[in-house]
Amino acid sequence: MRIALDAMGGDRGPEELVSGALLAMRDADVEVALVGDGDVLRSVLRACGVSEGPRLRVAHASQIVEMRENPVDAIRKKKDSSILVACDMVARGDVGAVVSAGHSGATLAAAVRKLGRLEGVSRPGLASFFPTLKKPVVMMDIGGNVDCRPQHLLQFAIMAAAFFSIHERGNPRIGLLSIGEEAGKGNALIKDAYPLLAASSLNFIGNVEGRDVFQGDVDVVVCDGFVGNICLKISEGLAEAAMRMLGDEIRKSFWAKLGYLLARPAFRAFKKRVDYSEYGGAPILGIDGVGLVCHGKSDAQAIKNAILVANKMVVGGVNERIRREISGVPVSEDE
Amino acid sequence: MRIALDAMGGDRGPEELVSGALLAMRDADVEVALVGDGDVLRSVLRACGVSEGPRLRVAHASQIVEMRENPVDAIRKKKDSSILVACDMVARGDVGAVVSAGHSGATLAAAVRKLGRLEGVSRPGLASFFPTLKKPVVMMDIGGNVDCRPQHLLQFAIMAAAFFSIHERGNPRIGLLSIGEEAGKGNALIKDAYPLLAASSLNFIGNVEGRDVFQGDVDVVVCDGFVGNICLKISEGLAEAAMRMLGDEIRKSFWAKLGYLLARPAFRAFKKRVDYSEYGGAPILGIDGVGLVCHGKSDAQAIKNAILVANKMVVGGVNERIRREISGVPVSEDE
Repeated sequence: MRIALDAMGGDRGPEELVSGALLAMRDADVEVALVGDGDVLRSVLRACGVSEGPRLRVAHASQIVEMRENPVDAIRKKKDSSILVACDMVARGDVGAVVSAGHSGATLAAAVRKLGRLEGVSRPGLASFFPTLKKPVVMMDIGGNVDCRPQHLLQFAIMAAAFFSIHERGNPRIGLLSIGEEAGKGNALIKDAYPLLAASSLNFIGNVEGRDVFQGDVDVVVCDGFVGNICLKISEGLAEAAMRMLGDEIRKSFWAKLGYLLARPAFRAFKKRVDYSEYGGAPILGIDGVGLVCHGKSDAQAIKNAILVANKMVVGGVNERIRREISGVPVSEDE
Repeated sequence: MRIALDAMGGDRGPEELVSGALLAMRDADVEVALVGDGDVLRSVLRACGVSEGPRLRVAHASQIVEMRENPVDAIRKKKDSSILVACDMVARGDVGAVVSAGHSGATLAAAVRKLGRLEGVSRPGLASFFPTLKKPVVMMDIGGNVDCRPQHLLQFAIMAAAFFSIHERGNPRIGLLSIGEEAGKGNALIKDAYPLLAASSLNFIGNVEGRDVFQGDVDVVVCDGFVGNICLKISEGLAEAAMRMLGDEIRKSFWAKLGYLLARPAFRAFKKRVDYSEYGGAPILGIDGVGLVCHGKSDAQAIKNAILVANKMVVGGVNERIRREISGVPVSEDE
């Protein structure tokens, strides 16, 4: 299995991304194609003391999509950008999957454009793991599919369940994110999506509330991409702000600082439990190929995990599962 | 200023609520009417060593709305429930405001029914403080006004700004909760609400993202009640889960436990900074009267703070501000 890594994306630079690729190759039977500026990448490889070879090769791309660019414009203009070249390699079958920590909007747009939608899928989207008190939960869509229709939510449920199933055996429990557990609670979209999910063959457990997401009693949480993206950003923002506030309080006293030092392994273990990098990026589901969008600040560990997840998605046949399940619930073309 | 306290609501029982009332009376020039079962409340007062008097009196109500009841049914059937009797007292002018830690849906429904909407207000809603790295931010609506129209969001902005203004001088910075900062980002509702807010006399700073909420660079965050309620519950759920996970890790080692003991004052200071009870409940805005909904698990401190906020809302003339501001932006009756 070979995976294309957009080696120019991400806030930490190519060195970090290349390190992630090396870690992945150490831990699993994967080959990596580093996509980006050939000179830059070869000098990074030299600095790492690694040479190009059949398991690790460089695929040159002369352009980079910058974070501030409009994604749709960027992928139209920058034909030789690392993310488009990487997606092209998946489309041609040179590699099985693409992983990028670059501009997420551009990655999503490039993947949908180059790979196309899976047959029957109305709107591809992004899923993400959330840490919980038990096992991580998958939430979909977090990728900005705004103004959805009920059938889109049903399709998100099917796709996220297929993704969940490559990680865990059993029939994942699907919940619809709402503001009350009863069937009649929610906005018009949720009220209309509820019966569709209830009538499907999915293991639908009904509405779940925001609090339930972190309890770990649901495996897949379904919502539109506006709500999902806000949930993700609210969670990230709260976690970051809370850690800063706690840090401020600890720095105010000598005893608190000493106490923190003693408790540091516990803090580290906690951080590892909630760290996004453990989950290795957000899969783009519903495209005819495998793609993962990583956080811009992903470190080598996060990149490694993303490559391993991409490998698992290809080997586990996520798209075959999605194709099979979704053929039962056709959505008319205009949707 | 006299305030009616629904003394039967809340998870901790009447003793906690009565203690909250006593704390409020100690700290401010307020009188409290305890609304609920007369026998129960008088025996609680006896146990506290306090006697009824002009500043603290008991108003009998024979019924209680239970948490599991449907709010609309409950307030239709239980005419002598503590929450309805308390709202009646506001309607008659016996008291200036009502505070309840009981069934929030029933409190909202009872307040809207007994007090009516303020002239020009299309949909009353609930606002809430969120802790941030700087000063707390007010978010509205968090009360379940689902499927809003753009003008409703404009009205939420006006009402929340009026509420914010009794706490802080200056022109509050208003942000629209979305998934990108640019004007074109968001779902259809947000895209249509943006120009209304931009054209208003409010200090509109544009879209804000979930991460921005906790940075403290915006004073009022506007969203529909579906999104707002989910944000609130996600935040509560994440905070609770994170604390439990951290606690689990700390309990695993002797040194971590010792460290935690040393750092405990810092943890306490942090908890106080993020504690909902410091903000004293969520104001119902847009009704012709003053009402606050408290968390079911509110302790005496939270109840005290809610009574003080209710007092501030009456004295500060929140409703006069709302009436004045909203008269400039009429909403047609069918909206």
